[in-house]
Amino acid sequence: MRVAVIGAGPSGTAALRAFQSAAAKGAEVPEIVCFEKQDDWGGLWNYTWRTGLDEYGEPVHCSMYRYLWSNGPKEGLEFADYTFEEHFGKPIASYPPREVLRNYILGRIAKANVRNWCRFRHPVRWVGYDEGMGLFTVTAHDLKTDRVYEETFDRVIVASGHFSTPNAPYFEGLSTFNGRVLHAHDFRDALEFKDKDVLIVGTSYSAEDIGSQCWKYGCKSVTVSYRTAPMGYKWPDSWKEVPLLQKVENKTCTFQDGSTAEVDAIVLCTGYKHHFPFLPDDLRLRTANRLATADLYKGVVWLHNPKLFYLGMQDQWFTFNMFDAQAWWVRDAIMGRIGIPKDKNVLMADIEKRVAGEDAGESDYDAIRYQGDYVQELINETDYPSFDVDAACEAFYQWKKHKKENIMGFRDNGYKSAMTGTMAPKHHTPWVDCLDDSMKDYLRS
Amino acid sequence: MRVAVIGAGPSGTAALRAFQSAAAKGAEVPEIVCFEKQDDWGGLWNYTWRTGLDEYGEPVHCSMYRYLWSNGPKEGLEFADYTFEEHFGKPIASYPPREVLRNYILGRIAKANVRNWCRFRHPVRWVGYDEGMGLFTVTAHDLKTDRVYEETFDRVIVASGHFSTPNAPYFEGLSTFNGRVLHAHDFRDALEFKDKDVLIVGTSYSAEDIGSQCWKYGCKSVTVSYRTAPMGYKWPDSWKEVPLLQKVENKTCTFQDGSTAEVDAIVLCTGYKHHFPFLPDDLRLRTANRLATADLYKGVVWLHNPKLFYLGMQDQWFTFNMFDAQAWWVRDAIMGRIGIPKDKNVLMADIEKRVAGEDAGESDYDAIRYQGDYVQELINETDYPSFDVDAACEAFYQWKKHKKENIMGFRDNGYKSAMTGTMAPKHHTPWVDCLDDSMKDYLRS
Repeated sequence: MRVAVIGAGPSGTAALRAFQSAAAKGAEVPEIVCFEKQDDWGGLWNYTWRTGLDEYGEPVHCSMYRYLWSNGPKEGLEFADYTFEEHFGKPIASYPPREVLRNYILGRIAKANVRNWCRFRHPVRWVGYDEGMGLFTVTAHDLKTDRVYEETFDRVIVASGHFSTPNAPYFEGLSTFNGRVLHAHDFRDALEFKDKDVLIVGTSYSAEDIGSQCWKYGCKSVTVSYRTAPMGYKWPDSWKEVPLLQKVENKTCTFQDGSTAEVDAIVLCTGYKHHFPFLPDDLRLRTANRLATADLYKGVVWLHNPKLFYLGMQDQWFTFNMFDAQAWWVRDAIMGRIGIPKDKNVLMADIEKRVAGEDAGESDYDAIRYQGDYVQELINETDYPSFDVDAACEAFYQWKKHKKENIMGFRDNGYKSAMTGTMAPKHHTPWVDCLDDSMKDYLRS
Repeated sequence: MRVAVIGAGPSGTAALRAFQSAAAKGAEVPEIVCFEKQDDWGGLWNYTWRTGLDEYGEPVHCSMYRYLWSNGPKEGLEFADYTFEEHFGKPIASYPPREVLRNYILGRIAKANVRNWCRFRHPVRWVGYDEGMGLFTVTAHDLKTDRVYEETFDRVIVASGHFSTPNAPYFEGLSTFNGRVLHAHDFRDALEFKDKDVLIVGTSYSAEDIGSQCWKYGCKSVTVSYRTAPMGYKWPDSWKEVPLLQKVENKTCTFQDGSTAEVDAIVLCTGYKHHFPFLPDDLRLRTANRLATADLYKGVVWLHNPKLFYLGMQDQWFTFNMFDAQAWWVRDAIMGRIGIPKDKNVLMADIEKRVAGEDAGESDYDAIRYQGDYVQELINETDYPSFDVDAACEAFYQWKKHKKENIMGFRDNGYKSAMTGTMAPKHHTPWVDCLDDSMKDYLRS
């Protein structure tokens, strides 16, 4: 049996690790081929200065920027089979910068010793399914040799992520704007906006964090435009929240309450799209960005062809350990340890129940709990190391409270590991004063 | 017979017009389906404020920027079947801004009344060729309905352009740069760089013109970094040419002669790639950007499968009327009016002769003449209206001379139409003083 994994980010490498861990325990595992567009594993956690298209003309996957620190506590995302303490040899603080998290992800997968399963710089051009043969044909482009080829697989796992293709709405007059308009996906170095007036459109994580970055690195002002409601944190003095952008004329932005602002740059923090240009209609996931995705049994099995799996396609509170829970479950489904019901109605009922469960929640706390329960449900059904999901939820609850208390200071808190029970030490420097985001600086005591 | 045309820019619309003109003369023409990624025809001449990926997650085709004026005389690119004078109802000056040229292209194709041949927002995902059936299968994505489908065609014409996918080399330290790094493809509004120090890397048209734009709209300085040799024009005082960029550190750029410059933005004017992610190995053109492309008989017929054609894949002095000459020739080849030799050696000999012909030239003047001869060769074999190719070459020669005399003033000259013999009037305002690039302002007397 051959299994294709599309993408070698946190979800794809979770799949590799899941199969490798079964092999390490003596199981016979399928042949795994992981197709990765970038030249290394790590997915979004790989940083590049590039925007738009990369050196091979492929869309740049990276949505990360310099000086990015985790915007949620590491205690919510820790791998159950590879703790931060194991990787770094000591307890570390709760909100690591990008390089530290990347190093952690890569440490786990390097230890699994499966790099030879991966084909880097191999974007997948097309996936087809042959009903008669019961096989998938994957068409991949080996960019380094500029060669396109096809291979057949019994199963396909799509792990290509959904925070890489910008959702960028149009606002009247954007084409007359005399500055830079960019989507959060293309934001790189906050120092570009030093002494500038920056308009942020949107109120989710990108808006909050890119605005905070610009402020921290010396922009002149931040104006955040919201569609529904302001974020409502206690922002610094040079920060204001205004209603939705109505139109742009040269450098003047007009908002729905009639107020205006002169700005130098407009950052569209307006979210991302699930985008699978390599999949035909009958295999392509079309879902809103929510906790209970459309058309995925157990959140991972493609309703319309249960030989196809998706990892990490949910909106996310839980991340790395949820991808792990999914990957272990998908591995066991592929290896026949878990049965997928043959009756499509059963699959649909599962999905409907999940949707109803999410819809019944009223608050972010409910949503965290809901996703924690989902993670728990999956890990109960595999040999993924069980962990204290309640403790991870608790870290998220604390995080939300700390953000409300001090949006520019919440990263100075520490939480208890759900894996080791250890309390994270305080970081040596408050986040607002810590301009160096290198791993070296972060790890010094 | 069914023919797929991929792209509805100047080359694709030339193909549509070629078939329509044959139909208008009473010929029975194949069914034509034109797949276009954008929501309108016009190709690169459509402007958008977007960069990177568009509202559907597709790579933005546009490499144009605001305030772009033609950098070559319109007398070199005029359609022989539809003159500027016919379109605008009067003679106009020789270097029109983008909107004027777009209007002209669209006027010609609108008159042909073939919009119903086009499927807009339909990127092609894949093209396959079935040897047994002798048919191509085109897989297209209807973005508006999010539906992917296949159709078969007897012939395929690739007219997707080659000035849209950036070639962006790496320079040491780019990831530490504290400003914006962009490729020319993503340059939009020169006012973003007002009062800024701008580094341009490259010495071809984008470098020359984006530097000039930034200067015209008030940047503080322009530094142009060359690999081989400086452009050598008489640049303004705030402009200098330096050897190749060696490394970047924060905002400091170091060049190969050891000199340094502090800059706010780096614009990589480093050219474009031929990029066809929708084509398999046996159909995919791989060529340097040159006048005699690899593997194209008569510059248009795919050597390895003569049912496949490429338009406009050459490096270009001639543009619109060369695409026309190619489109008419391809039309006649498809309609059986022109025979394509069956012997592959004959096709290869043609290509080798073209390569040798180009290589024998020594100067830009030779290259212009060489491409003029190519255009003449093609139009001699079809019913495309014959025109005075020598006069078009003469406009190019004059243009080169005028650039050498005054790089910021060459657009104030006028040339004689190769189609009508009319001398272009002088524009009402010198280019350096003309900040309004609207069609309305350009056309006022």
